[in-house]
Amino acid sequence: MNELELIQLLTRNLPANDTVVTGPGDDCAVLNLGIPGKHLLFKTDAVVEGIHFTRETPPEKIGHKALARCLSDIAAMGGTPTSALVTLGLPKGFDPALIQSIYAGMNQLAARHGVAIVGGETTTNPERVLISIALLGLVPVNQCTRRSGSQAGDGIFVTGTLGGSIAGRHLDFEPRLAEARWLVENFPPHAMIDLSDGLASDIRPLLEPQQLGAELLATAIPISRDAKLFAKENPSAKPALLAALTDGEDFELLFTQPPGVAVKLLDGWKAQFPDTPLACIGKVLARPGITLRDATGLKPMPTHGYVHFA
Amino acid sequence: MNELELIQLLTRNLPANDTVVTGPGDDCAVLNLGIPGKHLLFKTDAVVEGIHFTRETPPEKIGHKALARCLSDIAAMGGTPTSALVTLGLPKGFDPALIQSIYAGMNQLAARHGVAIVGGETTTNPERVLISIALLGLVPVNQCTRRSGSQAGDGIFVTGTLGGSIAGRHLDFEPRLAEARWLVENFPPHAMIDLSDGLASDIRPLLEPQQLGAELLATAIPISRDAKLFAKENPSAKPALLAALTDGEDFELLFTQPPGVAVKLLDGWKAQFPDTPLACIGKVLARPGITLRDATGLKPMPTHGYVHFA
Repeated sequence: MNELELIQLLTRNLPANDTVVTGPGDDCAVLNLGIPGKHLLFKTDAVVEGIHFTRETPPEKIGHKALARCLSDIAAMGGTPTSALVTLGLPKGFDPALIQSIYAGMNQLAARHGVAIVGGETTTNPERVLISIALLGLVPVNQCTRRSGSQAGDGIFVTGTLGGSIAGRHLDFEPRLAEARWLVENFPPHAMIDLSDGLASDIRPLLEPQQLGAELLATAIPISRDAKLFAKENPSAKPALLAALTDGEDFELLFTQPPGVAVKLLDGWKAQFPDTPLACIGKVLARPGITLRDATGLKPMPTHGYVHFA
Repeated sequence: MNELELIQLLTRNLPANDTVVTGPGDDCAVLNLGIPGKHLLFKTDAVVEGIHFTRETPPEKIGHKALARCLSDIAAMGGTPTSALVTLGLPKGFDPALIQSIYAGMNQLAARHGVAIVGGETTTNPERVLISIALLGLVPVNQCTRRSGSQAGDGIFVTGTLGGSIAGRHLDFEPRLAEARWLVENFPPHAMIDLSDGLASDIRPLLEPQQLGAELLATAIPISRDAKLFAKENPSAKPALLAALTDGEDFELLFTQPPGVAVKLLDGWKAQFPDTPLACIGKVLARPGITLRDATGLKPMPTHGYVHFA
């Protein structure tokens, strides 16, 4: 059973109440707790030694990554993060200096984005360090951007460059919070998600629940320098384009926009974020199926990015 | 380094912002996010296979315990829980039926207290199941009850009976949410905490930060039937009173009340919660030091309950 199948099983009969605006299945849960004009965003995520980082990872980067992953989910809803709790699972005989350095990386990122770390919990996890973050954010009700909402004819956009994040970016990426806020205020996306498992996988929740499809242009996919280098130096590695589509841990924003805004959006973006690429990579179609057009014609999109437990 | 020393180290320089009413160091973080008349309570907690439960524990009880521990912290602030996220760390090749049963126990408890489970995250934790819960609650600003606030002369009260929870109660206790709400509405405590590490340990945060002390009456400490039985049947076990003071995982409420309310409070409680004991166990003193009075005189309180990592 993979992660997706397990989640489908578990989320079938969850208890709800009238504060729930959006439950499981989006980047964050969305709650109406009576904050005038705003929804509360609620997210948890965990990183585990040996899975998301190793004993050799600089501990500041472990802390950075643990929090940055959650911040990226707040960004994907168009929100502003406010407060985090940290749950640490630690082997007996852990090195306090290691934990302090993990916190230093986390604190620095939190402070940069105005996030308060308001406590947490420590417990024993005998074999490896595990860090679970719970994060809250706020979003104006009319700016809350979900995975649903795309329409046939929408343009599909992605920030940054994709693939090869294992070379380092998965540890030190800066969550696209400012970019997402600028988008929801100036060019409200129809739908948005952050790329954690890879574009080929993460584009599906933007389309499939509504029986929509897409045609992407291979030459428009922004491939990272690391993915290109790696493919060049390792003839047996996957091609750079495939890496960009399936490597995962990009933590870029993927979103859809109504037709006709592309030029204004790309111009405005360039003025606002001159160092961050934004690419229009394709178009939403009215029928299911995601294809990739390259010089030789149309190909089906690879079916999966990184699938946990696979 | 024990858990307390680690937490003291880590909470020294945490980033804050103006939404933080109470940061680390209470049962929950308390946040002002602009909800009219209310504070938001925010809590995380984790249970780990081999530490908080075993492979033999009925999985419904694992789920129950994971959520109930967090609910008990919302109770300790006088709040009402609203929404939870569940982070699961799972070994590869986990049994989906086990996870479903864990959820069944959690869902049942959540539904009983009106709590929505709004999503979560799964990750790999290769050697053992780990469940981390993030929980939100609401509390009217003027009913939010902290660990601080006790005054010399206050009466000290505890719900239920203490000790021996390992015989079963640690897995199926019902968090004292209704009791706590009744207290904050009818007999607002000066300070409150839930007993997780044992009375001998958990009474300290109610007193020591304010340089207060207490005298407890040994005969007034409510000892559980399990603790008595265990001490009787195992001559080498700790005496029942010591078990009640130090076993931990009682998840009862310990709180202080202004002088003079004891009779009315105990009468009102008996009418409201006829099946749940409430005991006045001693008095807050103006000078540091916690002592226990028994037939032979005054003794110092054992210094610790259950100390993680010890």
